[in-house]
Amino acid sequence: MEKLRRSVHSERKKVKDVGEVSIISAIHRLQAIVPMGYLGIGDDAAYIPPSESGWLISQDMLVEDVHFRWEWITPEQLGEKAVIVNMSDIAAMGGVPKAILTSIALPRDFEVDAVEALYRGVSKALDRYGAVLIGGDTVFSPDRFALDVAVLGQPASHGPVLLSGAKPGDRLFVTGRLGASYAGLILLSQGIKWPSTSLPYRSVLQAHLAPRARVQAGVKIGPLAHAMTDISDGLISELRAMTRFGGIGAEIQAAKIPLDEATQYVAREYGKDALDFALYGGEDYELLAAIPPSRVHRVQQLCLACGLPITEIGVVTGTRGIHVVQNGEELKIDDRKGFHHFAVDHDEP
Amino acid sequence: MEKLRRSVHSERKKVKDVGEVSIISAIHRLQAIVPMGYLGIGDDAAYIPPSESGWLISQDMLVEDVHFRWEWITPEQLGEKAVIVNMSDIAAMGGVPKAILTSIALPRDFEVDAVEALYRGVSKALDRYGAVLIGGDTVFSPDRFALDVAVLGQPASHGPVLLSGAKPGDRLFVTGRLGASYAGLILLSQGIKWPSTSLPYRSVLQAHLAPRARVQAGVKIGPLAHAMTDISDGLISELRAMTRFGGIGAEIQAAKIPLDEATQYVAREYGKDALDFALYGGEDYELLAAIPPSRVHRVQQLCLACGLPITEIGVVTGTRGIHVVQNGEELKIDDRKGFHHFAVDHDEP
Repeated sequence: MEKLRRSVHSERKKVKDVGEVSIISAIHRLQAIVPMGYLGIGDDAAYIPPSESGWLISQDMLVEDVHFRWEWITPEQLGEKAVIVNMSDIAAMGGVPKAILTSIALPRDFEVDAVEALYRGVSKALDRYGAVLIGGDTVFSPDRFALDVAVLGQPASHGPVLLSGAKPGDRLFVTGRLGASYAGLILLSQGIKWPSTSLPYRSVLQAHLAPRARVQAGVKIGPLAHAMTDISDGLISELRAMTRFGGIGAEIQAAKIPLDEATQYVAREYGKDALDFALYGGEDYELLAAIPPSRVHRVQQLCLACGLPITEIGVVTGTRGIHVVQNGEELKIDDRKGFHHFAVDHDEP
Repeated sequence: MEKLRRSVHSERKKVKDVGEVSIISAIHRLQAIVPMGYLGIGDDAAYIPPSESGWLISQDMLVEDVHFRWEWITPEQLGEKAVIVNMSDIAAMGGVPKAILTSIALPRDFEVDAVEALYRGVSKALDRYGAVLIGGDTVFSPDRFALDVAVLGQPASHGPVLLSGAKPGDRLFVTGRLGASYAGLILLSQGIKWPSTSLPYRSVLQAHLAPRARVQAGVKIGPLAHAMTDISDGLISELRAMTRFGGIGAEIQAAKIPLDEATQYVAREYGKDALDFALYGGEDYELLAAIPPSRVHRVQQLCLACGLPITEIGVVTGTRGIHVVQNGEELKIDDRKGFHHFAVDHDEP
C-alpha cells in the first residue's frame, strides 16, 4: 500500500494527474502488434477472426484486499497472475489462449508507474502463451483497485473438453504439484515476502505469486480425457464439481497426491498438514483429468514427452461421494476447510 | 444507498448472509436457456460456436459513484443499461450482440434482492436483443459495487464496420436524438427522480437511465457506411475519433443536430444550451456514420423502413479539424466541456 499510495508530497505521478487518455495510451504502447485478422484497441469493439472450432471465453475479476494485497504482490506479478489464472480456465477446456481484454478500476492516487508495471506483467503472460491484448476498459475507482480479465481461446478441433463426462473406472490424474500455492499464501500472511532467500520458501511463494497455466498439458491430455478442469478451489471442491452429475463419485489415495518437499517443509514449520493445502487450499491451477483406463498409458507418454509431471491419484466411482483413503482408512472430509472459508479469513484479517 | 444498504436491523438478506454460491445459483436461475452450440455458466469457460464472419467483443466497467449512483438508478435499470451500453459498441461495428459475460463485485451488505433485480434488468436487455448470458464472475467488494460486462457479437458477412475509413465528401448521419441523456443527468443531479410526472422530464430521464442500442440501424447502415461509431462521449469527441487518421475533418451544421423538444425544454429551464448537451454531453448511444453521397438515399430509405429517425448533420472535409457552423458563423469548440470534464464533476460532488 505504502509503495502504491504515497503521500501527496511524492513526486511520482498519479493516475489522477495524467487522466484516462494518457493511461490508455500507455497501455497501448505496451501492446504487442495484433496478429493479422484481429482488431485490437482503438475501435468500438475488438474483433477475432473465424475459428473452425469456435471460441472459448472466460472472465475473472480480482479485487484488492479480497483476492490479493499490495503488501504481498507487486503490480507486475499481479498483472501476470491475473492473465495466467484466466488462461488456466482455457487450458482446462483443452484450449489455447489467443486474446485477452482487461478492465481496470484505478484509485485516483494509484501510481502511473504501477499501471505500467501491471501491464508489463500482462505482456509477460501474453508473450509466454502467444496471446495478445485486444481491448478492455480503464476507469477510476473511488476506493480499491480491481482488475477484470476476459480471455478468448481456441478449443481443439474436437471441441471443448467439459467438466462433466467422467465415467466410473476412469483414472483421475493431476498435473504438477498441489498445495504449494496455499503454502505460499501462509508465508505471505506471516509477513514473509518474495523474494525469500530460503529455497523452499521461494518455491511455494512462486507457486502462489507466479502460477503457470497448463496450456500444453491441456492440449495433450484434453483429446484423451472424458472430463477435465483446473484446480483453482482445492482438489475436493473440483472433484465435487466434476462428479456433480450422473451419480458418480471419486476415490482418492492420499499418499498419491503430489505434495512436494517445499510444501511439506512449510506445512511442518507451521504445524499444518500439507495434505489439507492440496485438498482445500486452492489456486494451484494444475489440471485434473478423468482418463479412461485404455488411454492411461498414452497420456503418461505424452506428458513425459512434454516434461510435465502427471500423477494418477485415484479413480472415478459409480456411486456419489468423494472419498479420500489414507493408510487404508477413510479420511473425514471437512468442506468448511475449503477455499471460500479461507478466503473469508483473508478478507477480514 | 438507503435502499440498498439498510441498517443491520433490516430483515432483508445481504449477500454476506448467503455467500457466493447462492448468489451464483440465483443468477443461474435467471439465465435463459443457452442456444444449441453454445456452452454457458457451469464449466471452466464458456463456448461460442464458429461464426463465418468472426466475432466482435467489447468490455465496459461501471463503478458505483463513478459511473452511476444508487440514488439515481434502480438495480434493474442499471443491469439493463450496463448490457445495453456494451451492445451499443457491437451495433457501432454493424454487428449483432449474441452473448455476454458479467463480472460483479458485490459489497457484503448488498441486498440479495438487489442482485436479483440487477439480473432481471440484464435479462430484459438480453431478451430485447436476442442475446444470452454465458458466464462471468461473482466476487465480494470491500467498498463499492462494480459491474464489468463483456459482450460478444457477430459482424455482418462483409466484416466489422470500422471507426476509421471516412472520406472527404462523405455525409455525416446520426440516428435518433442527441443531448437527451445529458439533460436527464442534469435532472438526476438536481434530485429529480425517475419516474417523473412531467412528460419532458420522463423523456430525458429515460434517455439517460434506459438507453437503447441501435443494433437494427447498425446492421442496415453498416454495409453502406465508410465509417461508423456510437456516440458515447459527445458528438465532438466521436467526430475527433472518426477523423483521427488520413488528414480529414468534419463540418457540422448546428441547426441540423437533432435536439428534441424535451431536451431543449430542460436546457431552457436550467439556463443551459441544449446544443452543448449534444456536442459534449455523452451517453447518447446513437450511431454516427459517414456515408458516401451515392448511398445517402439508400440509407434514408432503409432507416425510414425500420422506423428509426436518421439525420444528416454535416460532411467529412479534406482538411483536419472539426468545425460547427451556427447561423453562418463558426462556433468555438471547447473540448474542456467534454464528458470527461463533466464526469469529474460528478465523481467529486
